[in-house]
Amino acid sequence: MDTADIDMQVLSLTSPGVEQLEAPEAVKLARESNDILADAVRSHPTRFAGFSTLPTPAPEKAAEELERTIHHYGFKGAAINGHIRGRYLDDKFFWPILERAEALHVPIYLHPTRPPRSVVEAYYIGNFSPEVSASLASSAWGWHIETAIHVLRLILGGAFDKYPNLQIVIGHLGEALPFMLPRLDQRLPKEATKLERPLGTYLRENIHYTVSGFNFLPAFLDLLLQVGVDRIMFSADYPYGSMSQARNFLDNLPLSPADKERIAHGNAEHLLHM
Amino acid sequence: MDTADIDMQVLSLTSPGVEQLEAPEAVKLARESNDILADAVRSHPTRFAGFSTLPTPAPEKAAEELERTIHHYGFKGAAINGHIRGRYLDDKFFWPILERAEALHVPIYLHPTRPPRSVVEAYYIGNFSPEVSASLASSAWGWHIETAIHVLRLILGGAFDKYPNLQIVIGHLGEALPFMLPRLDQRLPKEATKLERPLGTYLRENIHYTVSGFNFLPAFLDLLLQVGVDRIMFSADYPYGSMSQARNFLDNLPLSPADKERIAHGNAEHLLHM
Repeated sequence: MDTADIDMQVLSLTSPGVEQLEAPEAVKLARESNDILADAVRSHPTRFAGFSTLPTPAPEKAAEELERTIHHYGFKGAAINGHIRGRYLDDKFFWPILERAEALHVPIYLHPTRPPRSVVEAYYIGNFSPEVSASLASSAWGWHIETAIHVLRLILGGAFDKYPNLQIVIGHLGEALPFMLPRLDQRLPKEATKLERPLGTYLRENIHYTVSGFNFLPAFLDLLLQVGVDRIMFSADYPYGSMSQARNFLDNLPLSPADKERIAHGNAEHLLHM
Repeated sequence: MDTADIDMQVLSLTSPGVEQLEAPEAVKLARESNDILADAVRSHPTRFAGFSTLPTPAPEKAAEELERTIHHYGFKGAAINGHIRGRYLDDKFFWPILERAEALHVPIYLHPTRPPRSVVEAYYIGNFSPEVSASLASSAWGWHIETAIHVLRLILGGAFDKYPNLQIVIGHLGEALPFMLPRLDQRLPKEATKLERPLGTYLRENIHYTVSGFNFLPAFLDLLLQVGVDRIMFSADYPYGSMSQARNFLDNLPLSPADKERIAHGNAEHLLHM
């Protein structure tokens, strides 16, 4: 494997979070963001690929924007930045987006976001500084648990029974879900969930996982043993994470060369039709 | 290792949750619970040991009750059932309990509880049945995240800088904390926390971990690789978890006989002065 194998980057212009805007502003901002991103991809077509920004507060418009950017710009999927003003994607209001993503055979990357205010107040404000609260609620812990819960809600809401071929991508080695997967299966069996498959099966068949700078072998092994090598994709979280550290982590994984190739690029090429 | 090695059970009468009572009722109930438990331990002294129930809403009384049950009944520590009406142990109001536990050289077992109502409403009610919500908020997921956050608050609140020899025990292979430990260290370094030690060091020096029916090898390996074999203690979560499954899990761990002995009983004997 040489560096050329991992030099493609999938980009998305997700800030400042269309999820927090009113629908008309979100529609306008998403379209502008995607047009700018399309220019960047067009300038460096062997280097960059795009994920759509979607106006999630307007789900039908978001589905149209997803289709436009896939068909006209060759984007590879979409990124959604977590809850939409406290509403999660298990809410059927948003399912036109899921339906279109499945129909277009493109994945949705579910990116972390700050937890709802009521959660921050209950959990992350305590006998420590506002700066510590802010980190605890976000990149140190809160983002990840937030995203894991979002995935669980999607599953428990039946989204993957309705759209069985839908693929969601999450980062950070699965946001602690691998650690809890067998417990979830035990305590929420099919008899309780009324879903078509066991809960853990959705985590193995409808979710892909990126490393995202979690260059942590113990957690990686937990993910690998729970979901298998075909579901794991290299990423560095650049510029927040170090590209060289991520590459070093990949090179030193205790895996066969073929499995490293799958993680480095094979799984992503398959998922993103590249 | 034969069955005699693991036939001691540490008991606590924790229901109905003194943490949710007014102080006078909590003081009365804790004392009654401990007296009943002392009778059970006295009847089967080679089979049972006790953890105190504490009237946490009245911290000075709780510290006294802890001392009474350690000195008069030979109890081995205390169990606290999570937040006290939404307040966590990082709140200095509760620190007389921590101070006394450290002075008496006994650990506090931090047991899961239901998250605060605002968290349940934001996170665990969605497009699924009330029964699914109830499991998701408790034994399938919510309990565990709740307890992990409680531990993080204790650390970040400086409790272990004030009481450096205090030992807390948590169950369920560490409630997802092992998965997140290196991320916590990265995003909450000493420069941010103003603590004396790196965050992960408290997880390795002030916390012990039990299996509690999490007979899941991938998660166990994550814990083992992060905190080491001296911090892990066998438990079965009986009667909720199967004793034979827990024993089978222990027997089949990919560890040396000496390390299995540590997990089966050695670490607990050391921590509990047995």
